[in-house]
Amino acid sequence: MGAESRYADWIAVDWGTSHLRAWAMRQDKPVAESASEKGMGTLERSGFEPALLDLIGPWLGQDRMTVVACGMVGSRQGWTEAAYGAVPANPMPGRMTRAETHDKRLAVHILPGLKQDNPADVMRGEETQIAGYLASAPRFDGVICLPGTHTKWAQISAGEVISFRTFMTGELFALLSTQSVLRHTVGNGWDETAFAEAVSDAIARPEATAARLFSLRAEGLLHGLGPAAARARLSGALIGAELAASRPYWLGQDIVIIGATGLASRYQEALAQQGLAPRTIDATEATLAGLTTAWRTLEEAVT
Amino acid sequence: MGAESRYADWIAVDWGTSHLRAWAMRQDKPVAESASEKGMGTLERSGFEPALLDLIGPWLGQDRMTVVACGMVGSRQGWTEAAYGAVPANPMPGRMTRAETHDKRLAVHILPGLKQDNPADVMRGEETQIAGYLASAPRFDGVICLPGTHTKWAQISAGEVISFRTFMTGELFALLSTQSVLRHTVGNGWDETAFAEAVSDAIARPEATAARLFSLRAEGLLHGLGPAAARARLSGALIGAELAASRPYWLGQDIVIIGATGLASRYQEALAQQGLAPRTIDATEATLAGLTTAWRTLEEAVT
Repeated sequence: MGAESRYADWIAVDWGTSHLRAWAMRQDKPVAESASEKGMGTLERSGFEPALLDLIGPWLGQDRMTVVACGMVGSRQGWTEAAYGAVPANPMPGRMTRAETHDKRLAVHILPGLKQDNPADVMRGEETQIAGYLASAPRFDGVICLPGTHTKWAQISAGEVISFRTFMTGELFALLSTQSVLRHTVGNGWDETAFAEAVSDAIARPEATAARLFSLRAEGLLHGLGPAAARARLSGALIGAELAASRPYWLGQDIVIIGATGLASRYQEALAQQGLAPRTIDATEATLAGLTTAWRTLEEAVT
Repeated sequence: MGAESRYADWIAVDWGTSHLRAWAMRQDKPVAESASEKGMGTLERSGFEPALLDLIGPWLGQDRMTVVACGMVGSRQGWTEAAYGAVPANPMPGRMTRAETHDKRLAVHILPGLKQDNPADVMRGEETQIAGYLASAPRFDGVICLPGTHTKWAQISAGEVISFRTFMTGELFALLSTQSVLRHTVGNGWDETAFAEAVSDAIARPEATAARLFSLRAEGLLHGLGPAAARARLSGALIGAELAASRPYWLGQDIVIIGATGLASRYQEALAQQGLAPRTIDATEATLAGLTTAWRTLEEAVT
């Protein structure tokens, strides 16, 4: 793909707290891809432009190149703050924030996130994935679940995000499985049955969530609970607790999951167990579709 | 106290995962105290005796000294495994495990923990505090709450631990406030009202626990939630979730809290809000009372 990237029309960037990914795009198709660990959380303000140039330098010619970026790069601690839009809102507002660059070949546009006043909530990056999905399903009326470190549930109607909630399920799983006493019990592997039972138990009795965690350690010590089953039960307990708390979002709704394969399939299974039939959309495809929509808005404004 | 410690009758040791504390005891009174960071979690098997001698060496004469120890020192990864007693059980079984030592002046006795088959649970150290409280209140019939990294709730009747449950509330608070995205919002200080409201909300709607955590971050970003109020709300949300899950333990019961001042007072307030009037016992006093009971058992066996 290297040579082709010379003919990129624009560059798409997904810049989160812990990752940076860039794609050389020809219209809506990626023709080259590059990634680094230089997430927003690792950078001073002056570090953003060099981190970006490290990745996309080979794709630049002499002409000015349009770069469209979403994610935490637009936060207050990011490159340039792109103020949140307030829900209810179109997830693709058309308004972008220009980041200043020393390299005059770069025209960097940063997408704003969304905020909700009450209950207080924020998102940056997921709104672009939602916009990407809505580009292909403009009449979608239902709920979009975006599993991740901070899983989002968004209620969608008439092309707008009506409301949303964030759950720290992914971050809790990572902390508990690697930093807490449960790290001695939770290991690799997976146990489908243990996951299903844990989800079911957590949804049925969410008030007992706090009592379930240490049980994993004790069952490891007393009853030989294995590392794969422990991993599946911890995941099921946390996803189940999330589903119990997000029930007003998903109950009786048309659901789309936007996520990476592994985690999305766990949510899919957990929701299927509740009698729902969510569809799953690949997160990267949704991001690129959303960034493409934003890029087209810029093109239309110029021409 | 240094000179007096030469005349210690015995040595009491509280040896947890992350701490080691020793007291030179004259009968039931501490006359000298020493502590180090050499918790069970930091030591190889061969490291226990030197770690202990570092602390208690100055208290040893030429005669053999009885040492009574409780806590994780008796776990499988500890100095010598002291097998669990199974509930229902007297928390002070009289049976101790002797640890081998190179230094012949030491006679080290390790107290066993307690286990529960279903729901699976274990404790090591708290049983000694429970025994210490029961030594002064042998007819207590009710519930003992032991707040900590892993908070325990124990149902007591006729001098026995009937059942117990462990909650990872303290460890969750530490991980979330220092390792998760909430570290940007949670700071020092305290807000009594914010704590009380968070406890109340969590007990009333425990199924929403998973939705409350990220709200702290969002309220910090959008509504200027301060670091003290955020700390109190996180603590209240987690303690409230624990109280929701432990309700069968405390509802309508006579409650004793055994804990260190700060954390115990939070549980006291949270329970008072539910119309209960728990008494609080200092954790160190309870530990020493329990170890003293164990030492007396040894003395009686010898004489």
